[in-house]
Amino acid sequence: LTLTTDFGADGPYVAAIKGVVLGLAPRTQVVDVSHAIAPQDIAEGSFLLAGIVDYFPGGTVHLAVVDPGVGTERRLIVVEVGGQWFVLPDNGLIGGVLRGRDPSGIWEIRNPEIRLPNVSSTFHGRDILAPAAAHLLRGGKPADLGPPLTRIVLLSSLEPAEDENGLIGEVVYLDSFGNLITNIPRDRLGAAGPSGWSVHVLDRTIDRLTRTYAESSPGTLVSLIGSSNRVEVAVVNGDAARSLKAGRGTPVFLRRRRESLT
Amino acid sequence: LTLTTDFGADGPYVAAIKGVVLGLAPRTQVVDVSHAIAPQDIAEGSFLLAGIVDYFPGGTVHLAVVDPGVGTERRLIVVEVGGQWFVLPDNGLIGGVLRGRDPSGIWEIRNPEIRLPNVSSTFHGRDILAPAAAHLLRGGKPADLGPPLTRIVLLSSLEPAEDENGLIGEVVYLDSFGNLITNIPRDRLGAAGPSGWSVHVLDRTIDRLTRTYAESSPGTLVSLIGSSNRVEVAVVNGDAARSLKAGRGTPVFLRRRRESLT
Amino acid sequence: LTLTTDFGADGPYVAAIKGVVLGLAPRTQVVDVSHAIAPQDIAEGSFLLAGIVDYFPGGTVHLAVVDPGVGTERRLIVVEVGGQWFVLPDNGLIGGVLRGRDPSGIWEIRNPEIRLPNVSSTFHGRDILAPAAAHLLRGGKPADLGPPLTRIVLLSSLEPAEDENGLIGEVVYLDSFGNLITNIPRDRLGAAGPSGWSVHVLDRTIDRLTRTYAESSPGTLVSLIGSSNRVEVAVVNGDAARSLKAGRGTPVFLRRRRESLT
Repeated sequence: LTLTTDFGADGPYVAAIKGVVLGLAPRTQVVDVSHAIAPQDIAEGSFLLAGIVDYFPGGTVHLAVVDPGVGTERRLIVVEVGGQWFVLPDNGLIGGVLRGRDPSGIWEIRNPEIRLPNVSSTFHGRDILAPAAAHLLRGGKPADLGPPLTRIVLLSSLEPAEDENGLIGEVVYLDSFGNLITNIPRDRLGAAGPSGWSVHVLDRTIDRLTRTYAESSPGTLVSLIGSSNRVEVAVVNGDAARSLKAGRGTPVFLRRRRESLT
Repeated sequence: LTLTTDFGADGPYVAAIKGVVLGLAPRTQVVDVSHAIAPQDIAEGSFLLAGIVDYFPGGTVHLAVVDPGVGTERRLIVVEVGGQWFVLPDNGLIGGVLRGRDPSGIWEIRNPEIRLPNVSSTFHGRDILAPAAAHLLRGGKPADLGPPLTRIVLLSSLEPAEDENGLIGEVVYLDSFGNLITNIPRDRLGAAGPSGWSVHVLDRTIDRLTRTYAESSPGTLVSLIGSSNRVEVAVVNGDAARSLKAGRGTPVFLRRRRESLT
Repeated sequence: LTLTTDFGADGPYVAAIKGVVLGLAPRTQVVDVSHAIAPQDIAEGSFLLAGIVDYFPGGTVHLAVVDPGVGTERRLIVVEVGGQWFVLPDNGLIGGVLRGRDPSGIWEIRNPEIRLPNVSSTFHGRDILAPAAAHLLRGGKPADLGPPLTRIVLLSSLEPAEDENGLIGEVVYLDSFGNLITNIPRDRLGAAGPSGWSVHVLDRTIDRLTRTYAESSPGTLVSLIGSSNRVEVAVVNGDAARSLKAGRGTPVFLRRRRESLT
C-alpha cells in the first residue's frame, strides 16, 4: 500500500487511515509517498503518483487523497493499471498515471458494506477509501466495491501546451534540492530529442539539455531529463528554486535550436 | 505499534526507538502518528492519541513520548484500554484517551531486566519504553513490567470550561489545511446538539455549526463537528489559521442560540 | 532496512527506492532515519548513521544516499560492520560508523546484473543501491555485487581538533528541541571525564558538564553527554539554538578546568 495525500505527515489523519487498513489487512506493507502535497493541489498529486508507479510491484494498492470536493457528489473510484490498483477520488488525480498507460478496469466505490460503520462527512479517505483499499489488499474483487465505469475525470491542464516556437510547460514539483521539475515529458521532445531544444525560465536561457548534473561545474544552471523522465532545471550542487526565485507554476519554455548538436 | 513523540521525524531518536523494538519484536508493524508535536506539549500529544485510538485494532501498542520530566522521578506507565496498550510517561499524556473510556489496567514500568543494558539519563523512550513496548508486542504480560497502579496523573486543563453563556474552549491542534480543532467534544453540546450553538473566535461570529465543508461556498468561515468528533473552525477550501491569525491556544466560545434551527 | 538520505521525506524519490526494494524483497521492514539531511551534507549523514547503528539488530541493511558526486566516477560500496550492512557512496558517509568499529568486509557495487534495467544518470540510489540492498536483504552474498576493496574514502574533517587548551569541535546536528549536538565524543574527554572540562560556545561559558537536563532549572544553559554519547549544549525545557543563535557549524570549545569537581 502506498499513501499520497495533502494531510500533512504529522497528525491523526494519516495514522487513522493506516490503523483502519492494518486492522482489516494486518500484513500490509505501507509506504508513504507524500503527505505534503499543497492543499487540494491535484496536479502535484498526479505528478507524484506518475513518478512512482513504475517502481512498485504488481498487486500494489495506491491510496491517494487530494479531495477538494469531499462531501459533494464527486465519485470515489478504483482504477486498475498494469496489475496495480489506484483508490482515489474521481477528480483527475489519476491523470498522470494514465499518460501512456491504459487502465484495465475502473469501478465506482459505492458498496455501503465496505466502509466504516459511521461515515463522517469530512474524511472519506479514512471512512471509505481505507476499507476499500484493505478489501483489495486482502484479495477482494474490485467489482465487490461497486459498478464498472467507462468515463472518469481527466484534466487537460496537466499537459504542456505547444505553439510554433516549441513547448510551453510549467514547474509542477519542487524537490528538496531546489530542482524545478516540469510537466514536459521526454516523449514530447520529438525526433530531435533532448539535444534539439533550448530551455527558457524567467530571464534565463539554457542552451541545451545536458545528460547529468556532474557534466557541468558546481553553480552552473542546467536543464536535463531527470529521473522522472521529465525536463527539469537545476543548479549543480545548488538550489535552482532559490537562485531563480522560481517555484510551482513558473512557466518553462522549450524552443527548437537552429542546429542540433548531439 | 504506533509512535507519537515530540522528537522530530528526521533524526536519530525515532529511528533508534524503532531499531530497539524491531530487534526485540521483529515482525512489528510500525505506524508514525506524529513526531512534530510542539516540544513538551502534553495537550497536543494527548489530543493526537485520543484521535486515533478508535481506528486501531486490539493488541495495538501505542508508544508516546512527550516528556518534560525525563531524568526526574516522574513514573513511566502502561495503560490498557479496550484491548490496546499505551506506554508513556505518567504526566497526563493519556488523558485524552481516557475521556469516555475506562482503563482495564495500569502498571508502573520498573523492571530493570526489561530495558537496555545502559539506560541514559536523557532518553528513556529508547532505553526503557521501547523495550517495554516490545515486551507487550511479543505477548508478554504487563505485570512483568512492574506493579499495578491505581492513581495516575490527569490534567483538568485539557477540558473546556463552562459558564452561564456556554462553553469556553481553545484550539488544541492546527491541521495541515489550517483548520482549527478545539478541545470541545460533541458530547459537551448537550441535548440541543450542534444546531443549538453559535461559535465565537477572536472578533468573528459563526452563526451555527454546519454539517460539511462543501455546504458553504469556498472562502466561507464555518464551524462543524470534524472527523475527530470535536468542534472545529475552518475556511472552506482555505486556511482558517491564516485568515483569522489564530493558532494553538486561541480561545473559542460556544454560546446557546436563542432559537435552534435544524 | 533503514534509509538515510537528503531527498526530503515528501516526494517520489524515497517512495521509488522503497518500491524497488519491496518488489525484490517483499517482507522487508523499512525504517526511515532521516530524509531531511541538508543537501549533500556528508557530515550530517555520517553523524546520523553513527547514532543509530548500536540500536539495530544484526542483518540490518542501512541504505544511505548523500551523494554530491552522482554521475561521476565515485564508487558505490557495501561495508559490513558488526553483522550489519551499509550500502552507500564511497564519499566518507560511512566515517562516523567506523569510529571505534572495524569493518569485517568492504565490496564495490559493480555487477551490472544487480541493478534496474535502465540506470538513470541522476538517481543511483534507486537504480543501483536499492537493488543491491534488496540482494543482501534476501540473503545474497556481498561478493556477488562486486570485488572486495581495501581502501575507502574517510574524511578527517569529521573529528574535533585538539590544541594545548583543549578540544575544538563544532555543532554537527540540531535536533527538534534546539539542542546542539557536537562532534566531540565522550572518549575524547580523557581520564578527567566529563567533570574535567568547561564548555565555550559563542560568548557563553558553561562551567561544567552536567549529567541530566532535569538537574538544572528550566531556562538554564547546560552541557552534557547526550544520548548519542557526544557533548551537547542545551537549554533546559528551552531551545539552545534559538537562544544562542547557533546552528550547524558553530564552534564549540572544551577547556580543561583547573580543579575538577566530581
